[in-house]
Amino acid sequence: MPHITLTTDEPGIRGLFRFRPETARPLNELVEVLLRRESTLTPGERELIAAYVSALNACRYCYSSHAAYAAAQLPGGMELVEQVRDDLQAAPVSAKLKALLVIAAAVQRSGREVSEQDVAAARAEGATDLEIHDTVLIAAAFCMYNRYVDGLATIAPDDPASYAARAKRIVSDGYLGLLAESQRDS
Amino acid sequence: MPHITLTTDEPGIRGLFRFRPETARPLNELVEVLLRRESTLTPGERELIAAYVSALNACRYCYSSHAAYAAAQLPGGMELVEQVRDDLQAAPVSAKLKALLVIAAAVQRSGREVSEQDVAAARAEGATDLEIHDTVLIAAAFCMYNRYVDGLATIAPDDPASYAARAKRIVSDGYLGLLAESQRDS
Repeated sequence: MPHITLTTDEPGIRGLFRFRPETARPLNELVEVLLRRESTLTPGERELIAAYVSALNACRYCYSSHAAYAAAQLPGGMELVEQVRDDLQAAPVSAKLKALLVIAAAVQRSGREVSEQDVAAARAEGATDLEIHDTVLIAAAFCMYNRYVDGLATIAPDDPASYAARAKRIVSDGYLGLLAESQRDS
Repeated sequence: MPHITLTTDEPGIRGLFRFRPETARPLNELVEVLLRRESTLTPGERELIAAYVSALNACRYCYSSHAAYAAAQLPGGMELVEQVRDDLQAAPVSAKLKALLVIAAAVQRSGREVSEQDVAAARAEGATDLEIHDTVLIAAAFCMYNRYVDGLATIAPDDPASYAARAKRIVSDGYLGLLAESQRDS
């Protein structure tokens, strides 16, 4: 049961967005820019970074959500997402993406854990300053979203189909599109 | 030296805001709503939560900044901020604020560390659902800002006067006011 009385029974962060629309707006704008706007990393790759950090933070709602969103946009699907989660070094992702995921894992522990070596390794695989910046900020942002969702003890559905259904709508309408729709309903 | 090549020599998160204005906007809107918009917690109390979490994350730039912003808006000034940082239980803050700071410290460790007892204790001291929500989100957000600033190895000035000078301008113009000004300059 959530720690506070929400205004709807929507799961995870969605109930929090309804409770506090003033913060929902910038929280959705941030994730829309980071995960969906134009970038040399694909939306699937960026969702994979979000899912990986959420797994490291053991946030079931955010992991299940962003794993589904990543799987819907990556050729390797859910199998690839789970390989990254379970054994990053052995997972069949590009050397550049692997190096960025190593940086994301360091950020999850602490910002001060990101070493010059981690950054040099990503750069050696072709990562740009903007890709390194966005990887650090995606990882940092999910350290926020994960704590927000679990710190208020929101509910995470068990049924994988509910996350897969949401993934289709994220791909078609985006975070801001779904936020606007939920605000029209309320 | 920062891990990426920034476009200005502004310290801490300010150089990152210039590097990536698309994410600077929602990041500043979020902190403006959480720390400065109308609330039953004063701006000083909310800056204190931000400073306390930044100290727990050992983020020197964010701690120095928000400690100065809290000190500028709390009757107890910097002495109170440092008492909270060094020994929360002994610090002369209200029982309600102390209970909210305990929740913030739990969030800093992990969202899953916030217990029903922590929330019940805050509620027993008069904390509302909105105050509990905002405390969790402020703490979670600073787990992001701290990781962003340190994960990219930005520079933190040593001189306390630079943070105190910035505090005056945050109090008068707010986060969005200063962001707009820096964007006009660029």
